[in-house]
Amino acid sequence: MSLLVIGTVAFDAIETPFGKTDKILGGAATYISLAASYFKKNINLVSVVGEDFPNSNIQMLQKHTVNTDGLQILKGQKTFFWAGKYHNDMNTRDTITTELNVLENFNPVVPEHYQDCEFLMLGNLVPMVQQKVIKQMKQRPKLIVMDTMNFWMEVAMNDLKETLKMVDVLTINDEEARILSGEYSLVKASQKILKMGPKYLIIKKGEHGALLFHEDQVFFAPALPLEEVFDPTGAGDSFAGGFIGYLAETKDISFDNMKRAIIFGSAMASFCVEKFGTERLIGLTQEQVEQRVQEFIDLVQFDIALV
Amino acid sequence: MSLLVIGTVAFDAIETPFGKTDKILGGAATYISLAASYFKKNINLVSVVGEDFPNSNIQMLQKHTVNTDGLQILKGQKTFFWAGKYHNDMNTRDTITTELNVLENFNPVVPEHYQDCEFLMLGNLVPMVQQKVIKQMKQRPKLIVMDTMNFWMEVAMNDLKETLKMVDVLTINDEEARILSGEYSLVKASQKILKMGPKYLIIKKGEHGALLFHEDQVFFAPALPLEEVFDPTGAGDSFAGGFIGYLAETKDISFDNMKRAIIFGSAMASFCVEKFGTERLIGLTQEQVEQRVQEFIDLVQFDIALV
Repeated sequence: MSLLVIGTVAFDAIETPFGKTDKILGGAATYISLAASYFKKNINLVSVVGEDFPNSNIQMLQKHTVNTDGLQILKGQKTFFWAGKYHNDMNTRDTITTELNVLENFNPVVPEHYQDCEFLMLGNLVPMVQQKVIKQMKQRPKLIVMDTMNFWMEVAMNDLKETLKMVDVLTINDEEARILSGEYSLVKASQKILKMGPKYLIIKKGEHGALLFHEDQVFFAPALPLEEVFDPTGAGDSFAGGFIGYLAETKDISFDNMKRAIIFGSAMASFCVEKFGTERLIGLTQEQVEQRVQEFIDLVQFDIALV
Repeated sequence: MSLLVIGTVAFDAIETPFGKTDKILGGAATYISLAASYFKKNINLVSVVGEDFPNSNIQMLQKHTVNTDGLQILKGQKTFFWAGKYHNDMNTRDTITTELNVLENFNPVVPEHYQDCEFLMLGNLVPMVQQKVIKQMKQRPKLIVMDTMNFWMEVAMNDLKETLKMVDVLTINDEEARILSGEYSLVKASQKILKMGPKYLIIKKGEHGALLFHEDQVFFAPALPLEEVFDPTGAGDSFAGGFIGYLAETKDISFDNMKRAIIFGSAMASFCVEKFGTERLIGLTQEQVEQRVQEFIDLVQFDIALV
C-alpha cells in the first residue's frame, strides 16, 4: 500500500534576480518526495546518483521517511547536474549547463519490496525510462501520475505518446499542453490530450494556478499571490508531490478528492518558491502546511446561494 | 437609491482572428450598463454621443432599463470611434484608429434627478472628467468605483492620482497595476496602490482571473476556461458592470459581498467575449446568468476540513 516515486535526484546551480547558488540538491524526485512526505510516510524512491552525492542528502531524505533502497549510487560516476538562470519576470529561464552524467544510461530497477505499490508517480524523465518502471510493476498501480516536459515533445514525441497511453493523470504546463495538442485554447487542448490516454489532465499555469480536466468536468486551483517568488525551481514537482502524497494517504481517487489534492499540491509549490532549491521544503511543520492550505481556502471561497 | 454610470458610448471597429466588424456599438459605459442591468434596474447613464448615433442603440439601452436622460447628443458632431486589431493570442492588440470626436470637449452634466445616487461607477475616461462627476454629487455616494487605463498613467498621472484619492474601489489590469505602482509583484503593487486612496483594489488578469485586495485580505476569482475567446473588447467593462450592478442591487459593501460581486462580474465578462462587441450582453435571460455563475461555483469550490 505504498507510494513509489521515480525521477531525478540531482545537483542544481541556480541564479535568480535575488541571488545565486553553488551546486545544491535538486531533481524532480527530490522535490516530489519531500513535498509528498508531509502527507504520506515511507515513500519508495527509485533514482540514480553518482559517487559525488553526499550522504547527508540521503540522510535528509530518510529523515523525511523516504525509502532510498531504490536509489542507485553509481561508482566512478557523477550526479546529474543542471545550471540555469531565471529572467527578471521569473517565468522564463536559460539553461546554462546540462550534464546528464548518471542519467545517460539510467536503467531503473524497482526493488522487490517496492512491488506493493498503489500509487506511482513518474517524475519528469526520458519517456522510455518512465515506461520501463510501469512495465516492472507486477500488478498495475491504482493510479499512475506522469509528469513530463516540452523537451521530450521535441526529441521523443512517439515514445512520449506511447507512455501516455499507460498513465491515469498527466501533469504539464500550459505551454506544453499547447505543444502536445497543437491547440492554443487550453479547453480544446485538454479535449485532445484526454484522448491520448490519461483520464485526468492537470495543466499547471505557474503563478496563474492550475486546471484539472476530467471528462466534461473542470476544476481550477489558484496560486497563492506571493510578495516575491524567490526561486521557481521545483515548484511543479512540489505540486506533483503534494498532489500524489495526499491521494496516496487518503486512498481516494474521486474527482472531489483530486480537487483537494491539487490544493495541497499548490500549497507545497507555494512553499517551494519562497527559498532556493529544496530549502523551504525541509522541516516544515504540519501546522505550517495546514495554515498555508487555510490561506488557499480563504483566497477562493465565497458563498453564493442561487435560487 | 440609484446606480450612476459614467463612461464612453462609442463606435468600435474590431478585428480578431475570427473575423472583422464594421462600426458597431461599443464604449465603456455601454458595456457597464448592459452588464449591470442584469442585476440593477433603472441605471442612470451620463455620457456623450454625436448626431450619427442611431436611435436604435438608445432604444436598446432603454429596453435594458437604462435611463438615458444624461446622454448628451451633440448636434453636428460625431461619436467617439475606436478601431483595433487583436493579435493571435488575444492578449494584445493594436489600435488602428482613435477619433475622439465628441469626447474632445466632453463636459459631463449630472441631471438633477440623478442626484439620488448611492453607487457611482466611473468608467474609463480622462481622469479630470471622472473627477468632475464626483464633484457634481451633492451627497457623496456610498461607493465610488473607478476604472482607468495605462494611457492616463502616461499622459495624466497627476490628475489620475488626484482622482484616485476620491474613490473607494479601483479596477485596473495587472500591467496597469505594475505601471501605477512601479512594482512587479502584484502583492507589493496592491500594497502601494491601497495607499493612494482606494480602500479596495481589483486587479484584472484577463483569462487568468481577478484579484481583490482590501487591507490584508485577498480574494481570487478565476476566469472561466473557454473554448474560444471570440472578441475580448469590453470584457473589463462587463466585469465592472456585473460587479457594481450586483453591489447596487444588494446594497451590501462588505468584503464577503464584494467577493460575490466579483463572481457575477466575471460571469458577465465571460459572456461578453463569446461574441463581437455587445452582442452577447443583449437579451440574456436570468436563467442563463445564474447557470453561468453556477459554472464558476463548480469551477473553484472544494471542501477541505482542516482539524
